[in-house]
Amino acid sequence: MASGSEIERLIQLLAKLPGLGPRSARRAALVLLKKRDLLLEPLAAAMQDAAAATRDCEICGNLDTISPCAICRDPRRDPHLLCVVEDVADLWALERAGVFRGRYHVLGGALSALDGITPERLSVAPLLERVKHGVDEVILAMNATVEGQTTAHYLMDMLGGMKVTRLAHGVPVGGELDYLDEGTLSAAFKARRAL
Amino acid sequence: MASGSEIERLIQLLAKLPGLGPRSARRAALVLLKKRDLLLEPLAAAMQDAAAATRDCEICGNLDTISPCAICRDPRRDPHLLCVVEDVADLWALERAGVFRGRYHVLGGALSALDGITPERLSVAPLLERVKHGVDEVILAMNATVEGQTTAHYLMDMLGGMKVTRLAHGVPVGGELDYLDEGTLSAAFKARRAL
Repeated sequence: MASGSEIERLIQLLAKLPGLGPRSARRAALVLLKKRDLLLEPLAAAMQDAAAATRDCEICGNLDTISPCAICRDPRRDPHLLCVVEDVADLWALERAGVFRGRYHVLGGALSALDGITPERLSVAPLLERVKHGVDEVILAMNATVEGQTTAHYLMDMLGGMKVTRLAHGVPVGGELDYLDEGTLSAAFKARRAL
Repeated sequence: MASGSEIERLIQLLAKLPGLGPRSARRAALVLLKKRDLLLEPLAAAMQDAAAATRDCEICGNLDTISPCAICRDPRRDPHLLCVVEDVADLWALERAGVFRGRYHVLGGALSALDGITPERLSVAPLLERVKHGVDEVILAMNATVEGQTTAHYLMDMLGGMKVTRLAHGVPVGGELDYLDEGTLSAAFKARRAL
């Protein structure tokens, strides 16, 4: 029980972070309050700095402190390859993998009839505009979920005539067959490759 | 990959919170940056408010926005009962249980030869001073860990002559015997009560 309303409010807001529930938010608040100088104040300042400095890239939708973002500005990245992702988190994940040297386009979500996410609510029109100018291949890197695959099919229709690819489905590296779902196993089996 | 240094710094600081690793800190930072007005800025403000408003209670060591804290000030709480806890988190946990209507004393940790935590580094001297003035019973609510129980034994020696009690050990409510460790089962068995 924290009686101070400032402490209660801190706990409530921390509990809204993904990965923190009410219990762990309380623990986090206690750690923050115990390390006021070392953690709480620097974190509060970092949040305000990030809030002030961060902007959406006007070209691809990535989050960065400059717009166009560092990726869109980077002349070493191939402008003929465009990788379409649902979310900024997916873009960051692909960058961590370091496998792609082209440019990105962030849709801002995936189509979902249930949640009322129509193509108009995603960055589809800007994507169709972008691909007109010197893009040779569009890589659809949607999540392997129903919504992600629906979105990929929709985009494939809209991009008719272009070279469109998608990520391979299969056994994750380090994965054990025994623990994999039937869908993944079946996809991996069908897409088997000659050694 | 977040290229903006402000974003990287936010992620690094978030990763220091308990319950958030590097991966979930990145997710949390993304959510914060997406909800700048609704979450990031209010949270940064709440942190600064909490940092400015929070102080350690000069009597018991609780964290509150006033000192002495709300519990030490509350005239309805029995000053003859003193519950000794390792940490503020334990105090809050007992308050949530709502089982205790006395006052607290926060030690600030538990004795640990390994970590060099000696009685001088804990709030032991203030405790021994406090119990001289009208305390009838000292309840030792240490964790049921080696360090906690060492601390409890040490305090029991120091408080010789007073009525000193400790929390019961046993089967947690809702617990299944099959999943409990031998120590707990053995403690629960030895402390069995007549129905």
